[in-house]
Amino acid sequence: MAKIVMKFGGTSVGDIPRIRNVAKLVQREVERGHNVAVVVSAMAGETNKLVAWTRELSPLHDAREYDSVVSSGEQVTAGLLAVALAAIGVPARSWLGWQIPIRTSAMHGSARILAIESDLLNQRISNGQVAVVAGFQGIAPDQRVTTLGRGGSDTSAVALAAALKADRCDIYTDVDGVYTTDPRITSRARKLERISYEEMLELASLGAKVLQTRSVEVAMVHRVPVRVLSAFAADNGGTLVCDEEDIVEKNPVTGIAYTKDEAKITLLRVPDQPGVAAAIFGPLADAGVNVDMIVQNVSEDGRRTDLTFTTQRSDLDRALHAIRNAAPQIGYKDVISDPRVAKISIIGIGMRAHPGVAQTMFTTLAQKGINIQVISTSEIKVSVLISEDYVELAVRALHSAYDLDSA
Amino acid sequence: MAKIVMKFGGTSVGDIPRIRNVAKLVQREVERGHNVAVVVSAMAGETNKLVAWTRELSPLHDAREYDSVVSSGEQVTAGLLAVALAAIGVPARSWLGWQIPIRTSAMHGSARILAIESDLLNQRISNGQVAVVAGFQGIAPDQRVTTLGRGGSDTSAVALAAALKADRCDIYTDVDGVYTTDPRITSRARKLERISYEEMLELASLGAKVLQTRSVEVAMVHRVPVRVLSAFAADNGGTLVCDEEDIVEKNPVTGIAYTKDEAKITLLRVPDQPGVAAAIFGPLADAGVNVDMIVQNVSEDGRRTDLTFTTQRSDLDRALHAIRNAAPQIGYKDVISDPRVAKISIIGIGMRAHPGVAQTMFTTLAQKGINIQVISTSEIKVSVLISEDYVELAVRALHSAYDLDSA
Repeated sequence: MAKIVMKFGGTSVGDIPRIRNVAKLVQREVERGHNVAVVVSAMAGETNKLVAWTRELSPLHDAREYDSVVSSGEQVTAGLLAVALAAIGVPARSWLGWQIPIRTSAMHGSARILAIESDLLNQRISNGQVAVVAGFQGIAPDQRVTTLGRGGSDTSAVALAAALKADRCDIYTDVDGVYTTDPRITSRARKLERISYEEMLELASLGAKVLQTRSVEVAMVHRVPVRVLSAFAADNGGTLVCDEEDIVEKNPVTGIAYTKDEAKITLLRVPDQPGVAAAIFGPLADAGVNVDMIVQNVSEDGRRTDLTFTTQRSDLDRALHAIRNAAPQIGYKDVISDPRVAKISIIGIGMRAHPGVAQTMFTTLAQKGINIQVISTSEIKVSVLISEDYVELAVRALHSAYDLDSA
Repeated sequence: MAKIVMKFGGTSVGDIPRIRNVAKLVQREVERGHNVAVVVSAMAGETNKLVAWTRELSPLHDAREYDSVVSSGEQVTAGLLAVALAAIGVPARSWLGWQIPIRTSAMHGSARILAIESDLLNQRISNGQVAVVAGFQGIAPDQRVTTLGRGGSDTSAVALAAALKADRCDIYTDVDGVYTTDPRITSRARKLERISYEEMLELASLGAKVLQTRSVEVAMVHRVPVRVLSAFAADNGGTLVCDEEDIVEKNPVTGIAYTKDEAKITLLRVPDQPGVAAAIFGPLADAGVNVDMIVQNVSEDGRRTDLTFTTQRSDLDRALHAIRNAAPQIGYKDVISDPRVAKISIIGIGMRAHPGVAQTMFTTLAQKGINIQVISTSEIKVSVLISEDYVELAVRALHSAYDLDSA
């Protein structure tokens, strides 16, 4: 008998028949003798509707009121699933953030979970009552409802699993696991049996939308085994996100991620002197622009150099505006931008032990005639910026080059 | 400067433009220097949608879960109105039942308000912050969300006004006040300037749908002056529901109510002996049938008599079933029923001081050739059962007979 947390996203609970389907998946675990807590998102579309109403009334709405309005979506699903479970003979009770309580910071709209007082919940599920918990929400120190930011139900589930000291947190979604790369790009993408927290964290940050980044961080810190699996397909075991030590075979590269919503900005002939980076990136930070990759060439004459950085495509106009406003302070000759770039990343904890992994990437791309514009690396990933036109070609070529193709 | 509670129903907050309209009505009171608390219903249609989802999953759903699901509708409106108010410069904060808290009984689905801890709310509104309170909901002793039953937001508003010791509770609705009778039946119906709690209670119980019966009871007990007025039309003062002492001119009859959803059942030749009423009405109560009017003829031979009672038309089949099952115990000769009957009532506190008021009713109906089937009276009302066909004719004739017609 194990203690498990199951999490279902908006698509999985998108209408009444699907809520019934989820109830059956929960019943299956109960009948296996497990003690179960379930975390649910709002029905697909509900959160968007509530957000749209709030914005229509006021683009600059009070974040406390936004949270109170938007959190109602999960409240509805939690109650409905408890009803659906009772209807098939599974004792269940719904729980809202304030009822448990799930204590969070006061950062409304993107609050962080601080503590979950899970004693009562633990007692109930140990007695065989399924706890259906509204995801995405908590309560601030001033007793106001908070939300964790979009996708926050993943984090609710993992944090609850940590608090309950659950044996496993199963994240049910519309895919049946984590793949070596996006199956829409290559049919040779393989489902991974296991992936380490560190790799999953990079994958999530680098464009794979299977799990919310913050939820992987929480899982990693508290060592919660997380399983990603399908709410619709037959159970094939999904993918287990776990400790590096629990992965026997460590490939040099585990997965390939990509993001297409990148933009590149190059400042030509900026002074090669102390303080110039601050003059550039200070105004960008003030404008709320997130800068990702940065590369600065060695200056030829010791006086002037070119500097390139990337940002989200949606931030491009704001970034250019900030840069032009700061032109007198920076002192560049010209600024050019390219909104049609993409980032391709290879990820793998095996990289640490295998030299030459990056070299394979560069060679492979060169053989396909793909120009690398910017490179950025960490201990377990290499990212390169290329023209958007070559994304699919690059992903497929790298997938083969690293022996990730399915048989 | 006064302290007032304003209440808006589902139609008044039915979409985003209407919520903006409500915000302006609240702003008007704030600009008059008043301290304001607002109670809101769910957007029109939302509660029905949530109820339908719950029923679809299980006709015998857990009432606690039903309440948690259904109460989310008011949560959304409260947050949205707070946003709408802030957007036009009116400081506002939303409050859910558990946040105030509004303590209720544990009778989920039709809970009664026990106490409202209004100190914090009072402090906030005294400081000029509008309190937007989710109507229809409270919290049970076990910290579960409760709802007050359909139309319960009226009761929330009046109870809040009592707790806050407000000077007035304004119920905004889609009509501009309480009328002498249904204006759809006669264009001569007049809006009343004032009506007593007692009269309003009878009107509400006897078919006028302006206010929920329970809310009038609470207003009467706590002597809360309630004003009924339109959320859409220009303010014409509405109708004030108040103490009898505050009404100078007491007409014999203040209003005429009717209900068409009545049914009549007659048991022929039942034994005229002790215990027979218990034998009839016991099984009906067990079947959950509400019996309204009862009339028993004097028996001619001292052995057998006829007994007639009325019930809601929707209960007719259930009532007949119960009566037939209990036939051996009751011992009647035959049972006949008529689902095409209606109840017409005249109401007025002046009746106490004016003899002959009922006689005017009987004469007026007789002159129109309308047969009275059953009569029932109280200190301030007379109700008669007639054929459904004559409802409009009867209401118009009585409206004239009691000098209620507008000039």
